[in-house]
Amino acid sequence: MSQNTSQIVPVILSGGSGTRLWPVSRESLPKQFWPLISERTMIQETALRAAGPGFAPPMVVTNHAHRFLVAEQLREAGIEGAKVVLEPVGRNSAPAILAAALLVAERDPDAVLWMLAADHAIADLPALHAAFGRAVAAARQGRIVTFGMRPTAPETGYGYIEAGDELPGLAGAHAVARFLEKPDAATAAAFVAGGRHLWNSGMFVFTAGALIAEMGRHAPEVLAAIRAAVAQRVEDADFIRLDPAAFAACPSISIDYAVAERTDRAAVVPADIGWSDVGSWAALWELGAKDPHGNVAVGTAVLEDSHDCLVHTQGMVTALIGLRDVIVVVTPDAVLAMHRDRAQDVKKVVDRLKADARSEAVAHKPEG
Amino acid sequence: MSQNTSQIVPVILSGGSGTRLWPVSRESLPKQFWPLISERTMIQETALRAAGPGFAPPMVVTNHAHRFLVAEQLREAGIEGAKVVLEPVGRNSAPAILAAALLVAERDPDAVLWMLAADHAIADLPALHAAFGRAVAAARQGRIVTFGMRPTAPETGYGYIEAGDELPGLAGAHAVARFLEKPDAATAAAFVAGGRHLWNSGMFVFTAGALIAEMGRHAPEVLAAIRAAVAQRVEDADFIRLDPAAFAACPSISIDYAVAERTDRAAVVPADIGWSDVGSWAALWELGAKDPHGNVAVGTAVLEDSHDCLVHTQGMVTALIGLRDVIVVVTPDAVLAMHRDRAQDVKKVVDRLKADARSEAVAHKPEG
Repeated sequence: MSQNTSQIVPVILSGGSGTRLWPVSRESLPKQFWPLISERTMIQETALRAAGPGFAPPMVVTNHAHRFLVAEQLREAGIEGAKVVLEPVGRNSAPAILAAALLVAERDPDAVLWMLAADHAIADLPALHAAFGRAVAAARQGRIVTFGMRPTAPETGYGYIEAGDELPGLAGAHAVARFLEKPDAATAAAFVAGGRHLWNSGMFVFTAGALIAEMGRHAPEVLAAIRAAVAQRVEDADFIRLDPAAFAACPSISIDYAVAERTDRAAVVPADIGWSDVGSWAALWELGAKDPHGNVAVGTAVLEDSHDCLVHTQGMVTALIGLRDVIVVVTPDAVLAMHRDRAQDVKKVVDRLKADARSEAVAHKPEG
Repeated sequence: MSQNTSQIVPVILSGGSGTRLWPVSRESLPKQFWPLISERTMIQETALRAAGPGFAPPMVVTNHAHRFLVAEQLREAGIEGAKVVLEPVGRNSAPAILAAALLVAERDPDAVLWMLAADHAIADLPALHAAFGRAVAAARQGRIVTFGMRPTAPETGYGYIEAGDELPGLAGAHAVARFLEKPDAATAAAFVAGGRHLWNSGMFVFTAGALIAEMGRHAPEVLAAIRAAVAQRVEDADFIRLDPAAFAACPSISIDYAVAERTDRAAVVPADIGWSDVGSWAALWELGAKDPHGNVAVGTAVLEDSHDCLVHTQGMVTALIGLRDVIVVVTPDAVLAMHRDRAQDVKKVVDRLKADARSEAVAHKPEG
């Protein structure tokens, strides 16, 4: 059977704008292009996570404005042969991953795709690869496989998956009892206590053919539009440009809504892999290496009698005195200081700057 | 009598380094050269406070490194004919004001000198000028006159003056019962409650001859050294350079210790003039115009659910979310965030940066 020897194709979706990590992340240069967790940028870490023996070069789905950034950051990380697929407009994740699946299926419909967000962090790579092996086995059986993260806190910002029984002959892969929307706080607490609910990480594994088939079954209008956008693509040495009119005609819909929540072929692999969607500066504080006072400092910081703070500075020396649970982020043209409990409110600031037509809301200062 | 018609000579001492207002104020460009209270710099405000009918051009005592800054800022403010006297080294206030007195006395020993710090703020100019008139009357009687600020809080960072009886024939001018060092908190509270103690503002009024005579009586070694430094000065069109060897041989001593606390000719004029030594960022919050939530913002700030905060930013948009009693100061190469109660600890940060040989401790980033 060809599918057991064919390579796995990582498909990296790089469409987010990362507003909640303003002022570092802005539309002009969103969070996946910044070295927030390590010396490498987040998209570089993502690509390297899915590189090596058994993996084909990645396919990255991104927008027109970021095409050179993507190509250059992959080149810099030593990733060879990547395909960069350009979405003419943003239409959420289902059209993006489906385009990748259709492109791969032209050569090998049985190829396994690994769908990854460009801007998530995973701390435990051995655990990831073990879970991934279980997911691939299920995918080769035609399953639409997601990963379920054991919740470490009653997060209300994530969707949850209720795991069912283990699938016969697929150790570690479970049926999905149901997908659940972002819960309220009480429901989230019950989920964590109950032990059967898992965070939906947004990573998926499936064969190209299985995704196309399920999309045709549950979201035929998406499949029709993206088939046309792929058929009418313009491809050159570096970029694959999907047809603008056909792509724009596609509804905007996530893979969760379009397929995962509707298919009877869903599976979930529970996994403890140190996953984070790095959705806020508070998450970066959680992920960071802490000094004995609970502070995380990236860049040159002077911390005087301060506790449980995050300093992230792009060059400018940043001093804190007598603060607790405060986040300070410094860029050449914008500074953010906030209580750590208010990290979800960064969007309000960006919206106010946009309303004032201030360029700092969306664009970075040119270097000079 | 010539002294009643001679002009008053403002003598502005511009020797401070303003470390407590880091990162705006640094040795290379201390606080008197920044527009902290108004659109004008503090030394410009100081010079303009003592300009107009009845005033001679000011004499400014400063160091070699700041001579062009002083000259240019006075020129820009429209102050004509200023004399800029250069201290070869810092020796505190007694040598500086004595040098000015000796220079003025060469032409007119009866001239009245008004000694002013370059970096203090005074909000109520009519009240200042009324108090000043009373001080000049006492100075013309040979008194060493200081101003006593009615304390508005039990400050432990200021020296205090205990006022005695009003001087005969000198309405509003009192004998000085005693000068008191910076008190502890309980003593300061008792001073405020008692009503007879006043803050020592560091402003003085006296004739050149009276200061020289009292200096000769109480600090003859200072007088001898500074006489020599003035006699051997090098003077050109713009600057008066005191002799380095003679000046360096002088002890470092304040006018308070050298003369005011020892002379029997001391007088104090109580005054409510909205004075501040602008000794910390917390003082700038006190002085600033507040929004309905008690915030003071200088520069482009976005304040989201924040209260009683100070933002001072030199161009970079600065956002605060969910903070209370926090001060954020943003410069192109250094940022400070601190609790408002910890404004006296800025020096600790500067000392740590100095220990690490970081230029931001003392020098500003070159413009580029």
